Amino acid sequence: MSNPPASSRLRNVLGHLLPFGGTKDGAPVPPHMHQLSPTFFLERAAAIEPQAEAVYHVTTNGAVLRRSYMELADRARGLAYYLRKNAHKRVGILAPNTPAFLESIYGIVAAGGVMVPVNYRLKPDDISYIFDFAEVDAIIADAEFVSLLDAYRQSHPQTKVLVDVDTDANEGALCGPFDDAILEGLVYDRETGGKGWAGLQSMTVENEDDMIAIPFTSGTTSRPKGVVYTHRGSYLATLANIVESGLNVASGRCKYLWTLPMFHAVGWTFPWAVCAVRGTHVCLRKVDYPLIWKLLREEGVTHFNAAPTVNTLLCAAKEAAPLPSPVRVTVAASPPTAHLFEQMTALNLHPVHVYGLTETYGPITRGYVLPEWDQLPAHDKFALMARQGHGFLTSLPVRVIKPDLGEDVLVDVARDARDIGEIVFVGNICAKGYYKDAEATRKLFAGGVLHSGDLAVVHADGAVQIQDRAKDIIISGGENISSVALEGMLVEHPDVLEAGVVAVPDSHWGERPKAYVTVKEGCRLAGGDLIEWAKHQSAISKFMVPREVEVVAELPKTSTGKIKKNVLREWAKGKGGPGQ
Amino acid sequence: MSNPPASSRLRNVLGHLLPFGGTKDGAPVPPHMHQLSPTFFLERAAAIEPQAEAVYHVTTNGAVLRRSYMELADRARGLAYYLRKNAHKRVGILAPNTPAFLESIYGIVAAGGVMVPVNYRLKPDDISYIFDFAEVDAIIADAEFVSLLDAYRQSHPQTKVLVDVDTDANEGALCGPFDDAILEGLVYDRETGGKGWAGLQSMTVENEDDMIAIPFTSGTTSRPKGVVYTHRGSYLATLANIVESGLNVASGRCKYLWTLPMFHAVGWTFPWAVCAVRGTHVCLRKVDYPLIWKLLREEGVTHFNAAPTVNTLLCAAKEAAPLPSPVRVTVAASPPTAHLFEQMTALNLHPVHVYGLTETYGPITRGYVLPEWDQLPAHDKFALMARQGHGFLTSLPVRVIKPDLGEDVLVDVARDARDIGEIVFVGNICAKGYYKDAEATRKLFAGGVLHSGDLAVVHADGAVQIQDRAKDIIISGGENISSVALEGMLVEHPDVLEAGVVAVPDSHWGERPKAYVTVKEGCRLAGGDLIEWAKHQSAISKFMVPREVEVVAELPKTSTGKIKKNVLREWAKGKGGPGQ
Repeated sequence: MSNPPASSRLRNVLGHLLPFGGTKDGAPVPPHMHQLSPTFFLERAAAIEPQAEAVYHVTTNGAVLRRSYMELADRARGLAYYLRKNAHKRVGILAPNTPAFLESIYGIVAAGGVMVPVNYRLKPDDISYIFDFAEVDAIIADAEFVSLLDAYRQSHPQTKVLVDVDTDANEGALCGPFDDAILEGLVYDRETGGKGWAGLQSMTVENEDDMIAIPFTSGTTSRPKGVVYTHRGSYLATLANIVESGLNVASGRCKYLWTLPMFHAVGWTFPWAVCAVRGTHVCLRKVDYPLIWKLLREEGVTHFNAAPTVNTLLCAAKEAAPLPSPVRVTVAASPPTAHLFEQMTALNLHPVHVYGLTETYGPITRGYVLPEWDQLPAHDKFALMARQGHGFLTSLPVRVIKPDLGEDVLVDVARDARDIGEIVFVGNICAKGYYKDAEATRKLFAGGVLHSGDLAVVHADGAVQIQDRAKDIIISGGENISSVALEGMLVEHPDVLEAGVVAVPDSHWGERPKAYVTVKEGCRLAGGDLIEWAKHQSAISKFMVPREVEVVAELPKTSTGKIKKNVLREWAKGKGGPGQ
Repeated sequence: MSNPPASSRLRNVLGHLLPFGGTKDGAPVPPHMHQLSPTFFLERAAAIEPQAEAVYHVTTNGAVLRRSYMELADRARGLAYYLRKNAHKRVGILAPNTPAFLESIYGIVAAGGVMVPVNYRLKPDDISYIFDFAEVDAIIADAEFVSLLDAYRQSHPQTKVLVDVDTDANEGALCGPFDDAILEGLVYDRETGGKGWAGLQSMTVENEDDMIAIPFTSGTTSRPKGVVYTHRGSYLATLANIVESGLNVASGRCKYLWTLPMFHAVGWTFPWAVCAVRGTHVCLRKVDYPLIWKLLREEGVTHFNAAPTVNTLLCAAKEAAPLPSPVRVTVAASPPTAHLFEQMTALNLHPVHVYGLTETYGPITRGYVLPEWDQLPAHDKFALMARQGHGFLTSLPVRVIKPDLGEDVLVDVARDARDIGEIVFVGNICAKGYYKDAEATRKLFAGGVLHSGDLAVVHADGAVQIQDRAKDIIISGGENISSVALEGMLVEHPDVLEAGVVAVPDSHWGERPKAYVTVKEGCRLAGGDLIEWAKHQSAISKFMVPREVEVVAELPKTSTGKIKKNVLREWAKGKGGPGQ
């Protein structure tokens, strides 16, 4: 049988939603239950509002791409049938925040497979390690980053790599192998009975506790670890994120801007959450502040998520100006400062403060804002908002336990805002464990709770507040000094842009804090002046004032915007330098 | 040991949330899962915002009662410990929409029990039947309705009845047995270790598929049937209702007005949904239109739920006037007319149109409103909104299957808006079955789907639209006539308030439709004039025009506001009369 020309091939394979809810006779057993899986949210969105705008994107060929939910669902379906036809079950994703990434999140799982998204900012060696360790049999790679796979492809010639060229084309010369695969899959579906979505794993999966994805931790000091996400966990985290971030806007649809990397904890479940409420994914190949301000103003963006460092730079951009409509910004990744909240609110960017780990599907706590705080001075209100708060709607409560009592002894710290312990979690928003690493999984869940490795206090109202990563706390003269608290204090100085504080060895005190800061454009500041200023700040005790402050051009950061404390520690030892 | 006076007894037993998330060592196994149960939402709300207003209520002693989440949680905790102390596991509730009803929904389940809410408008004989059949060992009864239990109490002297007097008192002369029980339970908690919520079934239950409640169907033609609700089903229906009704308002908290009876399908899960987002329950002992308008205007109500008949009378009340802020009204129970939607919107009451059964935890479909409909003439837009739409966020899709093909044969009707079939459901928002009635449960789930008994068509866009209850369809000359469509047409007449249409036997056509209508205050209308008017309406075919229209003072209705078609059929046979 010869293939018809592409254009008519395409016409016959699109819009294949008819079997939705239809042709599969019988039902899951028992009929009053179905297995939870978020993949269904795309099929459902396309069934309810096929013409709603699912994707807005500026492609690599400079086109403005707008795809409807029917188109997004068609492309995900095509990918799913392609993967099924070729028996690919474990599929890597190496891409920035493109439509192809979204299509992969749905298509891979609908085919019955498991996705392995990776951070394209990792070293090629780490990327190879991840794809090898996670046993992928295919990789969907953006053309810009495919060269990172050169070594991997030599050693794994059997792994298929589908390159996405990120254009606005569905077929023809502008298409790449990824688009061709989608078309091949759509034709395959038609030629094997045209079951459409009803033939895929969308509405139901065999067991909601099965694996759906293996995102990897960033692994600054050791090999990245694969985190096992389940269908059930993803589904319940998705529902919580919809409610907590308010994606179900009262009128119309949300427009969600993809500043947060999708590879990071599967975009904190937002690829699913936005489709669940039939919102628009405003894709973004890279964090480009002038472009972000343009999209905020011109595309009616209603929501985005970003680490404090991204928000800090966004507020400092010269394009920054108050927006006509409020935008909800879900902020996490590292503890934000009250100062940042204040700046954002002035720009009509309204923070929803969350906290979580890759091991908790992203966000798992929220700093709930109480209406009575409006009576407080702004700075006090924002300081309360900067706390990590309470467990998410679909989580069990977060606990902070006393450290060093032994793995199986869980005793909560006092609710006195002083007693420091480790944040631990249990329940449905905890990942299942580390992939192929029983020992690390055992440690993660020591005592039957998920250990965050983050140190925090609990306030009288039950809100938790992070003091530090366990390894970042500074112990000086027997007192704990929170590097986070010091950083929050330093950025209050009008000339300081960002601050990173680490411990350096001290013969008398054991350790003492050292600060690295960057200053705002056009400002000049000497370290000694900042130390003098800090001595007069009431937010910290005098013994906490850093006796060394170094002004640098740039702070080293991870791909997700966290300051790399391990690099600062190396600098403090005189290894490598701030490059200034 | 002698008891201290009540006032100091009370002081020592309130605010007992400290063990929240705290003292229970260990964790559910495996630690990455917990069993879903909505009871936790109250404990959680009180932990996050103890001072938030949980309840607003005008009591029987004329006081305005405002209770915080801490107070609501304390009272529910006291009830739970009282029930545990007295080993009550199956507890009936016979009350209007009072704070005591809310406290019971949480307290009974936190004690490890199952609630059995009943409709206080049922005959005493039916109420006795329900409490006997459901094997309750205690009943919480509002003082106004306790006399309905006279016969039951004589035959069941062992069942404890706790009378709630619905005052604003926590202790002292104004309190009744229900308040005393709460105090007794709080003291019992303190004296047995003061475990607080950590000692109750709130965060976790043994098995999320266990029973949480047995609400009963209204049973117009036979004995009411008990519907088995599970923890998991209630939890997932609750999450969907939050998202679909938009209870998570962007700023501040929702204020939910209790027009819908709490006994009806456990208030469609809203007792849980409102607490999940820390909103205010504005309680209401009865549907009183002037009072409702007062609360809408003065208490800042943001949401309420009501059957179309309640909305019709609300719009017709002389106090009706456009509200300053939009209110979201979740409308269900019987198919609303486009005319009603238009009236409501003019008053700033914005309908969220849902549909469901007691067997689906209340709402399970929503008529999603598409932004592009704003381009349509208003009447066309509202006609689209009056369709029942698509399955809820946490449901699987709704299907409409061809009738009469045999119990196990499920074939979907065509999506042509003409082919009539039965609406069926599967998945997590289906109840588990009928209590102690295996045969009825088998019929309910015949073929592995939950049968609604409602007849509907499916439109080209996949939206379902109810035509009739199976038994209400009129078959005239071999054609199906939808009584719902006729009713929707008749209320378009400017003088008509409500309409109910039933089949009457016809020697020539088999059946023909007969309409009963009520007219608006101050209007006069003859049946013959309405028939003449109907002949010129384009919405129906000429053969459908009812040849008999009777204007009556009032239509007979169920306690949930549905027109009692069985009574209209009796009237049409000359049995009983419209009383005019």
